[in-house]
Amino acid sequence: MDQILNRMTASQTSAHDSWIAEAIDRRVPNHSLEGGFYHRDDVYRHDVERIWRRGWLFAGHTCEVARPGDFFALEVDGDPLLIIRGDDGAVRALSNVCRHRGSLLCDAERGHAGRIVCPYHQWSYGRDGKLLTARGMHQGFDRSPYGLAAAHLRELEGLIYISLADEPPDFEPARRLLGPAARPQGLERARVAHAIDYEVAGNWKLVWENNRECYHCDVNHPEYIRANFDRYNAEDTPPRVRSEMESAIRGSDARWRDADLAVNHRNTGMAPFPAGATWYSANRTPLAPGYVSESLDGRRVAPLMGSYPDAGVGTLRLRTLPNFWNHSSCDHAVSTRLLPGGPQRTHVRVTWLVHEEAEEGKDYQLETLLPFWQRTSEQDWALVKHAQRGVNARAYRPGPFSATKEYNVEAFLRWYLAQVE
Amino acid sequence: MDQILNRMTASQTSAHDSWIAEAIDRRVPNHSLEGGFYHRDDVYRHDVERIWRRGWLFAGHTCEVARPGDFFALEVDGDPLLIIRGDDGAVRALSNVCRHRGSLLCDAERGHAGRIVCPYHQWSYGRDGKLLTARGMHQGFDRSPYGLAAAHLRELEGLIYISLADEPPDFEPARRLLGPAARPQGLERARVAHAIDYEVAGNWKLVWENNRECYHCDVNHPEYIRANFDRYNAEDTPPRVRSEMESAIRGSDARWRDADLAVNHRNTGMAPFPAGATWYSANRTPLAPGYVSESLDGRRVAPLMGSYPDAGVGTLRLRTLPNFWNHSSCDHAVSTRLLPGGPQRTHVRVTWLVHEEAEEGKDYQLETLLPFWQRTSEQDWALVKHAQRGVNARAYRPGPFSATKEYNVEAFLRWYLAQVE
Amino acid sequence: MDQILNRMTASQTSAHDSWIAEAIDRRVPNHSLEGGFYHRDDVYRHDVERIWRRGWLFAGHTCEVARPGDFFALEVDGDPLLIIRGDDGAVRALSNVCRHRGSLLCDAERGHAGRIVCPYHQWSYGRDGKLLTARGMHQGFDRSPYGLAAAHLRELEGLIYISLADEPPDFEPARRLLGPAARPQGLERARVAHAIDYEVAGNWKLVWENNRECYHCDVNHPEYIRANFDRYNAEDTPPRVRSEMESAIRGSDARWRDADLAVNHRNTGMAPFPAGATWYSANRTPLAPGYVSESLDGRRVAPLMGSYPDAGVGTLRLRTLPNFWNHSSCDHAVSTRLLPGGPQRTHVRVTWLVHEEAEEGKDYQLETLLPFWQRTSEQDWALVKHAQRGVNARAYRPGPFSATKEYNVEAFLRWYLAQVE
Repeated sequence: MDQILNRMTASQTSAHDSWIAEAIDRRVPNHSLEGGFYHRDDVYRHDVERIWRRGWLFAGHTCEVARPGDFFALEVDGDPLLIIRGDDGAVRALSNVCRHRGSLLCDAERGHAGRIVCPYHQWSYGRDGKLLTARGMHQGFDRSPYGLAAAHLRELEGLIYISLADEPPDFEPARRLLGPAARPQGLERARVAHAIDYEVAGNWKLVWENNRECYHCDVNHPEYIRANFDRYNAEDTPPRVRSEMESAIRGSDARWRDADLAVNHRNTGMAPFPAGATWYSANRTPLAPGYVSESLDGRRVAPLMGSYPDAGVGTLRLRTLPNFWNHSSCDHAVSTRLLPGGPQRTHVRVTWLVHEEAEEGKDYQLETLLPFWQRTSEQDWALVKHAQRGVNARAYRPGPFSATKEYNVEAFLRWYLAQVE
Repeated sequence: MDQILNRMTASQTSAHDSWIAEAIDRRVPNHSLEGGFYHRDDVYRHDVERIWRRGWLFAGHTCEVARPGDFFALEVDGDPLLIIRGDDGAVRALSNVCRHRGSLLCDAERGHAGRIVCPYHQWSYGRDGKLLTARGMHQGFDRSPYGLAAAHLRELEGLIYISLADEPPDFEPARRLLGPAARPQGLERARVAHAIDYEVAGNWKLVWENNRECYHCDVNHPEYIRANFDRYNAEDTPPRVRSEMESAIRGSDARWRDADLAVNHRNTGMAPFPAGATWYSANRTPLAPGYVSESLDGRRVAPLMGSYPDAGVGTLRLRTLPNFWNHSSCDHAVSTRLLPGGPQRTHVRVTWLVHEEAEEGKDYQLETLLPFWQRTSEQDWALVKHAQRGVNARAYRPGPFSATKEYNVEAFLRWYLAQVE
Repeated sequence: MDQILNRMTASQTSAHDSWIAEAIDRRVPNHSLEGGFYHRDDVYRHDVERIWRRGWLFAGHTCEVARPGDFFALEVDGDPLLIIRGDDGAVRALSNVCRHRGSLLCDAERGHAGRIVCPYHQWSYGRDGKLLTARGMHQGFDRSPYGLAAAHLRELEGLIYISLADEPPDFEPARRLLGPAARPQGLERARVAHAIDYEVAGNWKLVWENNRECYHCDVNHPEYIRANFDRYNAEDTPPRVRSEMESAIRGSDARWRDADLAVNHRNTGMAPFPAGATWYSANRTPLAPGYVSESLDGRRVAPLMGSYPDAGVGTLRLRTLPNFWNHSSCDHAVSTRLLPGGPQRTHVRVTWLVHEEAEEGKDYQLETLLPFWQRTSEQDWALVKHAQRGVNARAYRPGPFSATKEYNVEAFLRWYLAQVE
């Protein structure tokens, strides 16, 4: 990455707050965190510095910037960015802030740009961030040092990741694991069918804790539990369910032992994640009998995607910390992107993708494509909101996790505490 | 109170802010406080710790939780509570926060519950706060330590008081004084006819200062002054008024010398309160000629309450610091409850009560029951809002109290300063 | 000024924040400021103490308080003020806060008052701020020390200036320079035709930086640039424009060499301002050919104002830091008043004035009077909002000014830094 552009964040590490250090010392394993982790301003700032401005963040999909000049905007902790494809075909994450007097360059959510022209004084930048013109500057003004700052960016099978760090973590291990798992889904040849933005009234960690267990599914997610085996675990899986799952796995094994389509999460309950410091994982899981897609009735809601030979491929699940998960069926994919909005607020975008050639109204209908994950997501946001209200109380005390159903919540917290320690 | 439940607040005493100490030293007696007392964040936090999390707070009425399982919710300084009657007939103030991962248990304002079931993972609690079931927890999980935290609670003649303190002040002196005064009103055999919630744009102390004087009544409370003698004091009571009052008192004395119905505030002007550290008081006062109830026209607006033999009982007035006052006529009672909402915000609920057997539309009409105290209250909230705007100004300087009309404002401030010193 | 009244602000100088001192040291000349100057709370407070509570602030026009008892309200940094004309004909800036218990005295934006009567307890003040009555106070109460506090006030050719400082800067140099320039416009014999209040989503300094250059005019102000020569500078003025301007100046010189109507800013580009510590300036500038007024089509939109002999007087421009500018044509004047509303908010009022005898609907129409400056102003507020969003980003770095087009931005920043250093 160009040296000129690569200087976005001299990360202003806030002094490691003593409250955090002491609260980490006080922590009882396999219990939820103290309330301060979810509402204190200093903890939020510390989370942002240590996690959100260091790690790899899912930004969006390459199909959202298919042609040179296509762009979309996002904002991380007050830093506005443009994800834009250059004339060289590369996708970049450019700072959406003019190098002249700092005006926001582009107010649009997405679009197509020949150049990026500042509305204030019309400094114009190329699709690669170079300052091309600065009419009105004095004679002898040297434009060369004034290209747009850029964040690091990686593409991974149609997913775009960025990092605001000066020196981001190594991305290649994530690529090696996620790449083969994601490839058959064909996200690079997808199109966005729909996206919904949510303002969730809770700390980003509460969103993850909710995501990392299906203990809450039974009552709260009637649609989800009909399609999936996550709600059970070794102790409480009825023999009938166990045998349904084994039968599904056998079918998959027989057909796809040598492909990347074989089921690799073979138990009820959720796949263990995260594991230690590893911030990414992927697995394929069978769906319940009668389901070929995560839809209300289990039937396909769009044409097959990617390289799938038929609909019987279960679901692919991808996740990367701190801000992404994806459930993909044979016919559609659903990506969830988190961005931090304050101690008690998380900006969430849920995006539905289908095959790039699928036509709305003909090949798929939003009425059947959206409800499964729209309902499941909104059910979760309501739970997160209530969790936030409760942990704000002084009467709240960290409580015990179910060893059989909340192992991933504990794993998430261990990952989190290791980041902020 | 169960030891398990009684550990709600290890009260996190904030360091006694030096601003407060110095401002107390600077204070000129019989003058209003410096502006910082009404808008500084540190003073607000100090008030909460020293007063709102220590003393006895009026929560509501026992008739709001008549049957086992009836509950209503309130929130004190971010701590959500459920006031609920148990199967043993006792009313409890349970923390409305799940002991598992801290979710808010119950989002409803009021209702009836067999059990309290957490919407997140369905941990269920009895009406006494005991954790009854926690399906999904691992084998060997011991539920017994995970009952809901509780605040202290006292019932007093139909009034419910709670304290968030570890060791609350002695309640019995208040009971001894308020009990006999309140008993004839029969609040235990009342029903709520109506309640209105207000967000008052002022510090809770400004609400009390407004309440503690009737100097402002002449122009601002046209309805109130027609019914009451408070607006006058020894110096400015016209002879006609003095003789009206004496005549009312003579009538009362003759009838009720031996009952708890005798007028015991026998002067114009407001009854002195508070007195030193005493946070409770009660008195009975005659109404103006032609008034048997605090209503727009002075006539009864509902059936007689409690044990009143006839309508000529004047008004009963109860008050407890920091959050309650009540004006009761022969036929209805009006309770005002304050809760702190920030340096410049007070949550206020005004509740109208009538005899439990009175039927709306038949025995009483809201159009005649409500206006007297609805108008008077709303007139006061507007005054408090303007007072807040003024004391926020740097140009504001503490000003002098009227010795004849604002003695109770001074008494309130002395009580307040003693609490926070 | 009465000693009793003149004690409004013992200016509570906040400790000179070390961030500010260090950021000033780091500053590269001819570059925009670091982001912290535009969003940090401590910088905002420092700006308020050093600039807004020290200097002379434009408050409004004398024609808004034409008769004794006429008043209008404004609020500076939470201090509410009444600008009111007394029976002695003097205009005063009285604190709008009661000396009793601090209530806001008057909630109206403007009006006419015989006395200023506090709505709380009816203390009443004269139009000069003296406490006239305080009914209800005890016997022996001495009213004399309880007049309303007042800010310093100066009138200047129909403009009202106030200062909250204990010892304000000398106003006379400003009067000597602005007086003769402003006099022919006749603002003392004007009336307010219309006013619009804006909440601009940017720091007050961004509003000034926007105001101090016309580099942004070409694309953003299509109406403005048709009427004015500001957009050009020595380097880029086409010969045709240069000769148009010289011709306009020659016409002016011939007619008004000895009057105060002669053009004194004779170049394209904006008149240099500020110059060093000088916080005021005025100049007269020709309008573009075909324009006799800053209106959409250049034609007069109201009767001639003041002592103008004809319409060919170009535009008069007045400006005073930190909160005022005015563009006056032969037929109308437009004043812009800023007040600080927080690190990222500026309250702006734009006021259109015409001759006091002009009648709306007959002598002028709002449809032709308002659009030129309404559009130009709103175009600027949008630019300021985008500038604020950009400088909030951590990726923002101070950028270079155009030596030919942004000399006044640099001059403004030097003035600013000298004030806060």
